[in-house]
Amino acid sequence: MKRFALILAAALCAGLTAGAQQALYGGPGVESPVINEDGTVTFRYQAPKAVKVEVTGDFMPAQKVEVEFNGQKISYDAPGVGELKEGKGGVWEYTTPFVVAPDLYNYTFRVDGNTVIDPHNMWVNRDVASLTSVLLVPAEGERSDLYAIHRVPHGTVSKVWYNSATAGFDRRLTVYTPAGYETSKAKYPVLYVLHGIGGDEDAWVTQGRATQILDNLIARGEAKPMIVVFTNGNISQEAAPGENSTGYVRPTMSLPQTMEGTFETAFPEIVKFIDSRYRTLSGKQNRAVCGLSMGGFHTLYLSLNYPDMFGYSGMFSAAIGVNDPSVSKIYQDFDKKLAKYFAGKPSLLWIGCGNTDFLWQANLDFKKKLDDNGFKYTFMETEGGHIWKNWRIYLSEFVPLIFK
Amino acid sequence: MKRFALILAAALCAGLTAGAQQALYGGPGVESPVINEDGTVTFRYQAPKAVKVEVTGDFMPAQKVEVEFNGQKISYDAPGVGELKEGKGGVWEYTTPFVVAPDLYNYTFRVDGNTVIDPHNMWVNRDVASLTSVLLVPAEGERSDLYAIHRVPHGTVSKVWYNSATAGFDRRLTVYTPAGYETSKAKYPVLYVLHGIGGDEDAWVTQGRATQILDNLIARGEAKPMIVVFTNGNISQEAAPGENSTGYVRPTMSLPQTMEGTFETAFPEIVKFIDSRYRTLSGKQNRAVCGLSMGGFHTLYLSLNYPDMFGYSGMFSAAIGVNDPSVSKIYQDFDKKLAKYFAGKPSLLWIGCGNTDFLWQANLDFKKKLDDNGFKYTFMETEGGHIWKNWRIYLSEFVPLIFK
Repeated sequence: MKRFALILAAALCAGLTAGAQQALYGGPGVESPVINEDGTVTFRYQAPKAVKVEVTGDFMPAQKVEVEFNGQKISYDAPGVGELKEGKGGVWEYTTPFVVAPDLYNYTFRVDGNTVIDPHNMWVNRDVASLTSVLLVPAEGERSDLYAIHRVPHGTVSKVWYNSATAGFDRRLTVYTPAGYETSKAKYPVLYVLHGIGGDEDAWVTQGRATQILDNLIARGEAKPMIVVFTNGNISQEAAPGENSTGYVRPTMSLPQTMEGTFETAFPEIVKFIDSRYRTLSGKQNRAVCGLSMGGFHTLYLSLNYPDMFGYSGMFSAAIGVNDPSVSKIYQDFDKKLAKYFAGKPSLLWIGCGNTDFLWQANLDFKKKLDDNGFKYTFMETEGGHIWKNWRIYLSEFVPLIFK
Repeated sequence: MKRFALILAAALCAGLTAGAQQALYGGPGVESPVINEDGTVTFRYQAPKAVKVEVTGDFMPAQKVEVEFNGQKISYDAPGVGELKEGKGGVWEYTTPFVVAPDLYNYTFRVDGNTVIDPHNMWVNRDVASLTSVLLVPAEGERSDLYAIHRVPHGTVSKVWYNSATAGFDRRLTVYTPAGYETSKAKYPVLYVLHGIGGDEDAWVTQGRATQILDNLIARGEAKPMIVVFTNGNISQEAAPGENSTGYVRPTMSLPQTMEGTFETAFPEIVKFIDSRYRTLSGKQNRAVCGLSMGGFHTLYLSLNYPDMFGYSGMFSAAIGVNDPSVSKIYQDFDKKLAKYFAGKPSLLWIGCGNTDFLWQANLDFKKKLDDNGFKYTFMETEGGHIWKNWRIYLSEFVPLIFK
């Protein structure tokens, strides 16, 4: 019996000495967040000395905000704010006055103006230079069930480096090989998935839940087993912030070499690497590309400039019309390239956008151009703006349609 | 030019709408942490309403703490605490009165008793159920340079699932294949690396910087290219917390099936899987195992129970003598198994422990037993206690010695 006390003591000490977090990280009685039986969610924050504690995140109804930028008025949807009330022991609390629909959310507290994550929730996502706490509300039969991890066969998720002749150094990709790939001799189709500005090769896997979506859709028989490649769209970057040789440097939203043509020019390097490293099926009918925001922009120009490369293209809240054609050949002769692309009879051009997205009008304009020319495409309108909630929807709609 | 303004506006909006973090996450003027030119480090925290702000972490000199546990007095080293002083704009600040030696550190703030990470530092590690902010002080020629990412060939790091007949479900491993593995036809030796209680298959990769250590040692020619397998030592767990089908459940320090023999009994499943999935060299001279704390305990009993499996064993701050032999055959006939193990002429038994570790005496006792029997081993004593700082040292000492 003495031995068992010692095990416990050892465990306790290990926790205390390994950074002294376990015992100190908030009171053990404070639970946050809590999904209540009626579907509301309670958030708690312990701060006896605080004057004001708020919670904000994409689980709250959006509110319109207008800012001025370079003389232009820009209106966008910002998440609403819930005010916590102080209770016993300095524990502040807020329960949503509404049922929080099944989905994956990000939230943060604002404590006297300082934005902090939930100290009682160790699940976080990094978005550019900030962290947010993660709340997953899954429900069987709902789309968010695709974002949860189930006991289904799991693909392998690898961080793989390729040599970029354009960059002059090794760069990192995230590669998903579907369950069964390693024990099979079959060849697989490949989907390339591109992130937005400020993102990297990790973004779709963390915020986007892409590997869960793939595992679950394939397990249900709703998607073909496929290799999925998550690229890093900033050619000047070796890998995601913190994962490259510049060390723990604070990331910035926009890096050089993101939307000036280099990524698209250098893209065949990546396809060549993937085709040499993995058992891939050849031909455009076995290659797809999709991306969000800047990645939707990249998707468009990759599709137009390499009309024989991709049979399936998915533009998610694509940043259409924000580029200066003069910076690169990649962005020139748009209409000519568009006609050539459609002459190549692509299997699918899929466009999704939120109807309050600041890029909504640009996407409608592009839609009109396609209509005017009689070009075929699939269009999905969703509620809301330029948010991950929409991009997860689009990915889970797009993936079942490709390689069929 | 209008288009470029639009790009910026788009980027700005994307940041604001994707969770509203970028602009809100602390003031842009607050930088923390800052490594100063004189080698000291400054920490800052913005909290105009706070009464007391402290910083604590393993960069601070340790202080002795004594607690009573089950009637026993337990003394351990806890990190010291630095008190921040409030300055302009409610920005609190603390500069270490000492040079912070090159190493990887974890730290947190305590704001009026609430432990929070540094809101201006997005680099975090999870340790069981809490997060800490990360500070890496690298310096050329110092050991911590091994923990930094350099422009050297990088191995592939994969999350791979194997079917465990013992568990009755799929379980996750982290697998490192060295640079060149995928383009070579050669077979490679395999090192198995085990975590401590409360850890998982991610721990050595996040807190332990193991893949950086491997990349750098191999690039320097100081270690042989090898496959490295990071297991999950809790057989009842599919994968790391948050990465398994139980969802975002708060992790606990100790799970069932960690130190009662199941992990060791089931270990040949993992070796069999790795040997079937990867191009591995066979025989104990091509297989090594090491682990920290509970993983050192596992290393010991794997070595004793499978004397033909591993030619190299590394026990890092091993939890020796904390188990009850009656719970499993794995822990019985210790002396007999020890003699048989050494009769098998292992190439290396490597033991490392900190001289203020609560397991120091247990490791000295084991050392004496080895001496009394004339068994050969290598022993490394370091300063400090049961901390990652030591485990990174031990890994970087052990790896160059194996497969030679």
